[in-house]
This record gives sequence, structure tokens and C-alpha cells, in this order.
Amino acid sequence: MNLELALRMTEAAVRQAMREGAAVSVAVVDEGGNLMSFQRMEGADIAGPVLAQGKAWTSVALRGSTAELAGRTAPGGELHGLAGGRFTLLGGGVPLWSDYGEGERVVGGVGVSGGTLAQDVACAEAAALVWRTR
Amino acid sequence: MNLELALRMTEAAVRQAMREGAAVSVAVVDEGGNLMSFQRMEGADIAGPVLAQGKAWTSVALRGSTAELAGRTAPGGELHGLAGGRFTLLGGGVPLWSDYGEGERVVGGVGVSGGTLAQDVACAEAAALVWRTR
Amino acid sequence: MNLELALRMTEAAVRQAMREGAAVSVAVVDEGGNLMSFQRMEGADIAGPVLAQGKAWTSVALRGSTAELAGRTAPGGELHGLAGGRFTLLGGGVPLWSDYGEGERVVGGVGVSGGTLAQDVACAEAAALVWRTR
Amino acid sequence: MNLELALRMTEAAVRQAMREGAAVSVAVVDEGGNLMSFQRMEGADIAGPVLAQGKAWTSVALRGSTAELAGRTAPGGELHGLAGGRFTLLGGGVPLWSDYGEGERVVGGVGVSGGTLAQDVACAEAAALVWRTR
Repeated sequence: MNLELALRMTEAAVRQAMREGAAVSVAVVDEGGNLMSFQRMEGADIAGPVLAQGKAWTSVALRGSTAELAGRTAPGGELHGLAGGRFTLLGGGVPLWSDYGEGERVVGGVGVSGGTLAQDVACAEAAALVWRTR
Repeated sequence: MNLELALRMTEAAVRQAMREGAAVSVAVVDEGGNLMSFQRMEGADIAGPVLAQGKAWTSVALRGSTAELAGRTAPGGELHGLAGGRFTLLGGGVPLWSDYGEGERVVGGVGVSGGTLAQDVACAEAAALVWRTR
Repeated sequence: MNLELALRMTEAAVRQAMREGAAVSVAVVDEGGNLMSFQRMEGADIAGPVLAQGKAWTSVALRGSTAELAGRTAPGGELHGLAGGRFTLLGGGVPLWSDYGEGERVVGGVGVSGGTLAQDVACAEAAALVWRTR
Repeated sequence: MNLELALRMTEAAVRQAMREGAAVSVAVVDEGGNLMSFQRMEGADIAGPVLAQGKAWTSVALRGSTAELAGRTAPGGELHGLAGGRFTLLGGGVPLWSDYGEGERVVGGVGVSGGTLAQDVACAEAAALVWRTR
């Protein structure tokens, strides 16, 4: 992970949001969960700085997409106890693997907030695609 | 509880994780819920410092295993209101009793995070076994 | 303030850091103190996400450059009571005025952290220059 | 940084505390500031989990020994504005460099709390010596 890649990922998410007609915030964190890049589009809500960073951190901390993790926080789900804590269990956070497909090591994460959950996920995936095809 | 015992418990949990092929974080807290020992294995996620400590604290605070407590947080369940607060209601936290079986007093707790919930529980139980057979 | 301007300001600060041989974090916030843009250069420390945002927020909150404000936090100084609170009273935070020179309204702020204080200030000023000559 | 080294460093600090007649807490964090190892000796205060981790994190975040940084937080000092925030500016935190003497990259930090400041510093240095002679 480096700033140049983080910026390309951030911009890919912003462009996807434009295509979706959404106004979002985008955060990229490194493997320690520390912020590298952030952009909030005009018109994007002020929850974005909190939620985009939270999703990115959570995807690194739990090594999974927050959309998938969120599905396991329903009552009775394996991760029910996590809901509401420090973890942001809302779709739109995607971990970045050192070797995509092999899952060896999470070296960063991207988080998007501001659109519908489907839009946030699409934007985060657009950023992750930049990572996978780097 | 003392550091020597806390370390033996921590190491027992780490060895169990190795047997399970998991990379975990292990925390041991005293009866005040304050951290005594912590180890994060190589490759264990950065949620570990938060979750292992959270499980250990919760097992002391509520005097029960977090795996069992988690089952009571479903809507309608006795502990529904707890989900999402300071409490980490995920399996892998085990209280340590002054006299196991009699339940006289909780004098500490162990928390494990990083594997599957079943692995976390197995590692925490391995640590608790050290306590019970001290 | 908008994202396009925030990015130009962020990049101006990063370029100044390169000229200075420093590795910094740069944050730009809007008039609500909410983050708009952030970049952490390779090699910049992990205090940057905290301090750059803190300086930017503080420059908006107190409507002044943090370098100047810091000078007033000495014992007996006007702002002594502020030191140590939510405010980041270290040089490198600069407010952005709606009409520079007239001081009508603060509409944002920039914060830089990671270099020496002199470098941080120089980078923040480079960003503010973009604003003033927009 | 890995757990085996983190443990050797932790134990070196504990042994130094024994020689000093002090009861301390020792924390080791990685380059992302995330906890790897922690031990609190019997009789060590419950501020230890907070302060030892805080010193270790601060030494990584600001890339310096907290003893030296603390000296610059006096009124009029360069870092006065930092005192009291998230940063733990008390002696006993020491950064670990990838190449000691060259200062290329901070890859972790150790923090000690519980003794006098001189004792905390001596214990942290004992841990850092393990790192430098690894």
C-alpha cells in the first residue's frame, strides 16, 4: 500500500459514485488500520468521515467485507455481539489482500459511505478492483 | 491470579491455537477487569487487541462465558439490551472462579479472538484448564 | 469549499513537503470542521491522521492559525486552559477565510503534521495559498 | 517485529523492573500501533494497562522516546499543545527502528509504566536493547 495506489483507489470509488448518482466519502487505510487517503464529495453527509473510516478499519480488523460481516450480526448470528461496538458493520468496507484469492495477508482496506448500501458496496468494489489489478 | 499464572494461561491458549491452525490474540484480566497479560500471534488480526480484551472483561463483568451469554442476547432474550454496548458478547471469553464448580467468586477472565468462534472458545478453555488445575 | 479545491490544496501541501524533504499528513476540513480531504505520504508517521485533522479542526474552531494560537497557551497566556483538551495547539493548522484579508467568515481549514513545525507550517501555508488565489 | 521478539523484549523489561525493585506494566506495539504483547507484574497499578500502551503507541506515532518528547511539552516548548491529548507524553516509551542508528523506519514501540519515570525508562531501554541486538 502506498499513497499513489490509495489515491487511485479513492478516485475510482468517487468516479463510481458519480456513475451511481451518489455523493459519498471514501477512506483508505493501511494494514495497521491507519488512514492513508480520504475524500468527501460535495453534498456527501458529515457521517461520511466517521463511517467510511469505520468501515475501512473494520474490514482490516476483521479481515472481511463489512457487507458480509453485517449479515452475521443478526440475532442468532455468529457476530451478533459485535453490532454497535467499535466496529462499523455496514456494507461498504472491503479488505485488500496481499495476494487476492489466496487471502494470505490483509494489507489495507477501503470504506465508502454516503449512498445506499448497494452504492457504497459498488464504490468500494470499484476501489478494490484498482488494487487487484495494480 | 498472578502474572505467572496469567502467562501460563496465555501460553496454553496460544498452543491450542497452533494445534487448531489459528492465529489468535489472548488476553487475561484480573478480578478488577484490568489487563494482566496479552499476546497477539503473528498473522492475528488487529481486531484481536480490542476483542480479546473485551471478551475477557465481559466474562468477568457478567460472570459467565461469553459464548453462553451471547445466546441470551437475541430479541426477547434476557440480555438483549446488552448487545452493542461496552460488552463483547462473542464466544471466547471465560471467567475464572476462585473455586471452580462452587462459583464463589470470579477472580479473573480470559478472552481469545482471531479464529473461528469454535477455535476461540477452545483456546479460552485451554487457558481456563490451566487455571482449574493450578 | 469543495472537493476539487480541497484536493488542490492537499496536493499543494504534499508538493511543498516534497520540496522540504518531509513526509507529512494533510487534512482539509470544511466550515463545520468535518473532513473533506486527507492524504498521508509514504513514510509519514501514524500520528498524522490524528494531528493533521486536529490542527485543521482547531484552526476552524478558533479561527486562527494554530502556530499563533500555540503561542498564547503558555501559563498566564490567554489560551492556557485550552492546552490538552480537544484542541491541537501545534503549528501547522491554518483557517481559510471567505474573503482573505477581511476575515468575514472561516469556511474551512487545513492541517499538516509529520515534519518539523516549520515544515508543517510551510506546507499548510502552501495549501492556504491555493485557497487565497482560487 | 513478531511475537517471539515482543515477548523477549517484554521479559527483559520485567527483569529490569525486578532489579530496580519496581512493579511495572510493559506493552509492545507494532508499526501500526497495535498491541502485540503486554504483561503487568504483581503489585503493578491498574494505570499500567492504559499508560504502558499509551507510551508505546505514542513512541511509534511520534517516532521518538516519550522521555525526550515530554521535555518539549513544557510551556513554550515545541510540543506544548500535545500535552493532555491522546498522546501519553511521559518517559518510558521507546520507538524501535528498522535499522537502529539510521532511523529509517519505526517498526514498533515499547512502553513501560508503574515505577518512577527513571525506572520506567530503564525498563523500556532494557527492552529496546533486546531489539537492537536481535
